[in-house]
Amino acid sequence: MFDKVVIVGTGLIGGSFALGLKAARAATTIVGLERSPAALERAHRLGIVDAVASEPRAALAGADLVLLAAPVAQTGAILAALLPWLEPHTIVTDAGSTKSDVVAAARAALGDRVGQFVPGHPIAGRESNGPDAAIADLYRGKKVVLAPLPENDGAVVARVADAWRRCGAVIHMLAPAEHDRVFAAVSHLPHLLAYALVDDIARKPHADLLFQYAASGFRDFTRIAGSSPEMWRDISLANRAALLGELDAYMAQLSDLRARLAAADGPALEAVYANAQRARCAWIEAIEAAEQPPAPDQESGK
Amino acid sequence: MFDKVVIVGTGLIGGSFALGLKAARAATTIVGLERSPAALERAHRLGIVDAVASEPRAALAGADLVLLAAPVAQTGAILAALLPWLEPHTIVTDAGSTKSDVVAAARAALGDRVGQFVPGHPIAGRESNGPDAAIADLYRGKKVVLAPLPENDGAVVARVADAWRRCGAVIHMLAPAEHDRVFAAVSHLPHLLAYALVDDIARKPHADLLFQYAASGFRDFTRIAGSSPEMWRDISLANRAALLGELDAYMAQLSDLRARLAAADGPALEAVYANAQRARCAWIEAIEAAEQPPAPDQESGK
Repeated sequence: MFDKVVIVGTGLIGGSFALGLKAARAATTIVGLERSPAALERAHRLGIVDAVASEPRAALAGADLVLLAAPVAQTGAILAALLPWLEPHTIVTDAGSTKSDVVAAARAALGDRVGQFVPGHPIAGRESNGPDAAIADLYRGKKVVLAPLPENDGAVVARVADAWRRCGAVIHMLAPAEHDRVFAAVSHLPHLLAYALVDDIARKPHADLLFQYAASGFRDFTRIAGSSPEMWRDISLANRAALLGELDAYMAQLSDLRARLAAADGPALEAVYANAQRARCAWIEAIEAAEQPPAPDQESGK
Repeated sequence: MFDKVVIVGTGLIGGSFALGLKAARAATTIVGLERSPAALERAHRLGIVDAVASEPRAALAGADLVLLAAPVAQTGAILAALLPWLEPHTIVTDAGSTKSDVVAAARAALGDRVGQFVPGHPIAGRESNGPDAAIADLYRGKKVVLAPLPENDGAVVARVADAWRRCGAVIHMLAPAEHDRVFAAVSHLPHLLAYALVDDIARKPHADLLFQYAASGFRDFTRIAGSSPEMWRDISLANRAALLGELDAYMAQLSDLRARLAAADGPALEAVYANAQRARCAWIEAIEAAEQPPAPDQESGK
C-alpha cells in the first residue's frame, strides 16, 4: 500500500499505472506532475489523478513512490529538478524503453542518492496515446522489466515490484545492458525496419500506385511505423550501440538471402522461411500460454 | 450468371470465390477439382462445391468459368492437364500472387488458346487456410487485379470481372509486369524482411531470452512470417527480378540509415521516421475511406 504516489507524465503509460493502482486500492492519493497543463487537467478530469502539481516541491512532499513516464531523453533533467525535494524515504522508478542511458542520467543527476532510483520498463502499450488512452488493465498479465542498480536496497526494489504487481504485471529482472541488447533485437530494430520500408516506398515516384495495392500484411508489418518519430529517434540514439549491432547482423542476413534469391536457390530460401515460420509459431504458442493473466487477488499483503 | 463454374483448388481462396458466387446466386453448379481428396471431400461436405471431380474431363464438360486457386508454380501443369478438355466457350482465370510467370506458363501450356485465359489476383486473405477457412465475404470491398492479355477478347475479361464483382470485389487493371513490380514492393519484400528477422533472431544463441521479451509490435511486424514457406518460396522465385530490385533499394536505405545512426544524427533519423509515419497515416486514412464495401446489389444485370 502507498500513501502518496506521484506520476510524472500522465499519458498512456503513467495514467494506466495510476488507474491500475486505484483499481487495486493500492494508493491513498495519486498526484500528477506534467509539463502540459492541458494533459494534466484532462488526467484530473478523467479521475486518473486525485491532485495536480505544476512544480516538484508540492508534488514530492511526503511521496512514497514516483513514476517517471516522460520521454527517456528527459530523464536526467526531470531527476535533477526532483532532487532538491526528494525525501529520504521516497522511491523513484521509470518506464523508459532503454535502460543504460537512463541509468547514466540517473547517476549524473542523483549522485549518492541514486540508490533511491529503480530503473524499470513495462512491456505494454496501445496504438493511442495521452490520458484518454489510459486504462486500468494495461499491465494485466504483461511483463515489467526491472533493472536494479547495485546501490538499490532489496526492500526498495521489492516495493517497486509490488506496485507493478498490484497493476497485474509479471516482474522480470534484467541488468540494464542486457535489457538494452534484448530490446534492440525484438523492438528497436523492427521499428527502424518498418520506418525504413514505409519511407523507402513513400519516396518512390510511383508511391501512390504502390500504396493503393498495399493490403493487410503491409498494414500489420508497418503498424509500428505509426509510432512517435520523436520517441523513436530518442530510443534509437539512446540505444545506438546495441541497435547498430543488431542492424549489422540483419543486413548480413539480407545480403545472404539476396545471394540465395539471385541464384534462384529455392531450397535455401524455403529453409530460412520455414525456420522463421516454425520459430514464430512456437513463440506465439508460448506467449499465449504465458500471458494468461494472474488471478486478480494473487497478492493481498503489503 | 454462370451455369457451371469449376474451382481448381478448394481451399481458402477458391472456396471463398465459390461461396461468394453462391451467396450472390450467380452460379447454377460449382464443381471442385482438387489434388487432395480430403480437402475436396471437406469442401463438398461444407457446401462450398455442389459436386466433386478427381480428373479434368468430367469437371470441364460444359464449364463456363474455371478458377485456378492452386500454388502458382503449378499453373503450367494444371493448364496443360485442362487443355484437352477445354471447350471453346470456357473462360479460365487464376488467383495467383504473381502474374508475369503465370502468363508465361499459360502461353506455354495453352498456345493459341491463351485468349481463353485471363490472369487475375484477388488481394484478400486470412490467417487460416483450407476449405474450413473459406467465407462468402472474403472479397467484399477488396481489390481484385486483372492483368488481361492482348489475346483476351473484351467480353471475356468483362465476364471474369463480373464474377468477382458478384463476390463484392472492386476490379483494378494492371499489366502483368506492372502488377509484379507493385507487389514486389508492398507484399513480397515485406514477407522476405519478416522471415529474415525471425530467422535471424531464432538462430542467435540467446534466442529464447529474446523471444521472451518480444511483444505486440513484434507480433504484428512478423505476422506475415507465419505464412506458408513453400508458397513464399514460389512467389519469391516467380517474381525474382522485381523482388531483387526492391530488396536492393531497401538495403541501400538501411545502409544510409545505419550511417545516420552511427553518426548519432538525430534530425536525419527523425526525418525518415516522421516521413514514414506521415505516409502511413495518410495511407491508412485512404484505405479506410476506399474499403467501404459497395452496396451488395450494386449490379443486378448480367
